[in-house]
Amino acid sequence: MKEVPASGAFRQLEPGPIVLVTTSHQGKPNIMTMGFHMMIQHEPPLIGCVIGPWDHSYSALRSTGECVIAIPTIDLTRTVVDIGNCSGDTVDKFERFGLTLQPARSVAAPLIGECLANIECRVVDTVDAYNLFILEAERLWVDTDRKERRTLHHRGDGVFAADGDVLDFSERMEKWRHLPR
Amino acid sequence: MKEVPASGAFRQLEPGPIVLVTTSHQGKPNIMTMGFHMMIQHEPPLIGCVIGPWDHSYSALRSTGECVIAIPTIDLTRTVVDIGNCSGDTVDKFERFGLTLQPARSVAAPLIGECLANIECRVVDTVDAYNLFILEAERLWVDTDRKERRTLHHRGDGVFAADGDVLDFSERMEKWRHLPR
Repeated sequence: MKEVPASGAFRQLEPGPIVLVTTSHQGKPNIMTMGFHMMIQHEPPLIGCVIGPWDHSYSALRSTGECVIAIPTIDLTRTVVDIGNCSGDTVDKFERFGLTLQPARSVAAPLIGECLANIECRVVDTVDAYNLFILEAERLWVDTDRKERRTLHHRGDGVFAADGDVLDFSERMEKWRHLPR
Repeated sequence: MKEVPASGAFRQLEPGPIVLVTTSHQGKPNIMTMGFHMMIQHEPPLIGCVIGPWDHSYSALRSTGECVIAIPTIDLTRTVVDIGNCSGDTVDKFERFGLTLQPARSVAAPLIGECLANIECRVVDTVDAYNLFILEAERLWVDTDRKERRTLHHRGDGVFAADGDVLDFSERMEKWRHLPR
């Protein structure tokens, strides 16, 4: 994993991939699958996401205020689904799914070695009526060497669209040249 | 366009497509391109999105509390980019881009005839610190006949990943069978 400026978080999240979220509470790491998230602001990079009391990760996120958003690619599809269909309450998901924990730099939650990108996040606000967390992206790690880079877009029911053709209309983006590279 | 239950909005939005948003204020329709949005709740279907005072649509949305989220496919990529690079302040975007307004049922904002799906939305809350609107999806229209169904995922700078292969892991979704069909 190579560190790149956290201001590039929107390049990873605005496309709307399904993501994994890691937490670490009282020395115990956990992972969940998350589809309800968005960019809120480019710089400083703010992310919104819904994690509720029905998620085992909720209390860890509440208590520690830290998590990592990891972005899997299509080779991990089955793992992504299965992580979303069991609970950290009864399962050590890192062990069950054979994922590699790597230490993060700014938060206690671990990076996932098998993912395309990992975003170290800190909770900066909550909107309790919607179980909405406002996260600031503090560090961004990208695996620049991996070949498989297609992310997954969840249509519900465990059906995903993988990334396909890339369309580049960057020469027409007149209003947006100020965004962080 | 065929109406389907609004509770299916998550099937359109959780995959994270770039969307168009229409408003209608004092008889004048407008459109913007939006990448910062998420599902917040399945049922009743709540959507979060960031629309700020820098967007011409902001005052219309504030005043009327109504909008339509329209989901374009890859045949509209150039239009999606160009809509995001001009302002309704000076341009009649429906006219410039040759899009077909269709009347919505519950809101004054129009549907876009060329889009794959249109979601009629009402503002039910705002989180002003982040220019975050909480919308309830009231009606959902889907063009079930169109052949081109690949949506666009914005990586920033006018570069998009189109939908590619579809991966179906629905038989492994044990925890989620209660979701609206």
